[in-house]
Amino acid sequence: MKKLEMLYQGKAKKMYATDEPDVLWVEYMNQATAFNGEKKEQIAGKGSLNNRITAVLFDLLRARGVDSHFIRRISDTEQLVQKMDMFPLEIIMRNTAAGSFAKRYGVEEGTPLKKPILEFCVKSDDLGDPFINNDGLVALGIVTEDELAEISRIAYAVNDALTDVFSKIDVRLVDFKIEEGRTADGVILLADEITPDTCRLWDLKDGSGQIEHLDKDLFRRGLGSIIPAYEEIYGRLTALADEEQIDRAE
Amino acid sequence: MKKLEMLYQGKAKKMYATDEPDVLWVEYMNQATAFNGEKKEQIAGKGSLNNRITAVLFDLLRARGVDSHFIRRISDTEQLVQKMDMFPLEIIMRNTAAGSFAKRYGVEEGTPLKKPILEFCVKSDDLGDPFINNDGLVALGIVTEDELAEISRIAYAVNDALTDVFSKIDVRLVDFKIEEGRTADGVILLADEITPDTCRLWDLKDGSGQIEHLDKDLFRRGLGSIIPAYEEIYGRLTALADEEQIDRAE
Repeated sequence: MKKLEMLYQGKAKKMYATDEPDVLWVEYMNQATAFNGEKKEQIAGKGSLNNRITAVLFDLLRARGVDSHFIRRISDTEQLVQKMDMFPLEIIMRNTAAGSFAKRYGVEEGTPLKKPILEFCVKSDDLGDPFINNDGLVALGIVTEDELAEISRIAYAVNDALTDVFSKIDVRLVDFKIEEGRTADGVILLADEITPDTCRLWDLKDGSGQIEHLDKDLFRRGLGSIIPAYEEIYGRLTALADEEQIDRAE
Repeated sequence: MKKLEMLYQGKAKKMYATDEPDVLWVEYMNQATAFNGEKKEQIAGKGSLNNRITAVLFDLLRARGVDSHFIRRISDTEQLVQKMDMFPLEIIMRNTAAGSFAKRYGVEEGTPLKKPILEFCVKSDDLGDPFINNDGLVALGIVTEDELAEISRIAYAVNDALTDVFSKIDVRLVDFKIEEGRTADGVILLADEITPDTCRLWDLKDGSGQIEHLDKDLFRRGLGSIIPAYEEIYGRLTALADEEQIDRAE
């Protein structure tokens, strides 16, 4: 596989073309950002941890029947993925009130929800990724009714599988953001990344009732270094994958 | 019927108890507000017009199979309504992109929508009436799944009936806000008001293609007096009600 020209540089990843038209080469960077890029830092080791975490999570999801764009990890900071036509959506699942949601509705962070909440935001830096509901998505022609049904089905399936994974490693999956796209064959798949950058993960191990963040809120809220937390997540996930004897594509 | 103590004073109406426990006495005021109360003015004649407009609209809706809390108009500025346990929701239907919706998603005002959009905002002055989706409403326990289904069914039925009414008087129903509640018997009904304060109404009569507002945007955007526009709407609605030989409860 040959790495060709860079196609896209995001806040945390660079994407390159390869000599196979349906395969992209992803490089995870050390850059951490928050508040739509207002807070920005280089954190040594972050790119490698996120590349390894998302790889093992995609493997654990595949073992639970949830496919993704992930092909295989090729180095500490790089992986190969299927090229996708991405929906311009941030797809957010919430199991517990936290962050912007808790603030928006005036509920305390940690408030349990009567059911998981699936939220969509339209990806647009100019508009600040505005929240949109299902009617809005279809009415503006961003997705069709059929696409929305399949995107939603996948999001709930990812939530079920991830909730199972994290409960097995004593972590509460508070909420997360995913992205989805369509392959050249027209199949809608989970894509992008699943890492402590994109999930709220609270440690259940200490049992004190105090929230212990194992996620990007450490950086967002200036609560401490993210590296030991991300290493802890990676360590527990690989132990689970070993225990489950998962054939890891990395 | 005796008017008893005032129960509630809103931005545009005062509600009083009566000697019948399930009946409220509503008084429409001349106050106009916009931007969550930041812009405020007394406009002579507004209370009377809105009281009369909402009364004839509730009659026109009832003739189309859509019931409401409205009992009858008792004076120029007063009407009797059923007492309701209100859902703390602004229920918004959109047929054409305009106002905050157009701004939020960066689309031009007047852009047609591929389907009507039903939106909910949680009524809260402190939180700025935040937009919420269906999962959120149920997850936070604001409504049950069954209530949400019935509230939504009514909102779409109101949109169908109102679209029919306004198309017959050469007005484009761009969007509107309603409220719903539950009677003492547990029936969910349309409540509050339907007026040019709560609807975006564009005149189709002149045919120039220029947007001619017959609604509160005249006040909100400082485009001119609302009174002639509201009088125009009232005149066309009463002519329609006469034409349809509707038994008017006023």
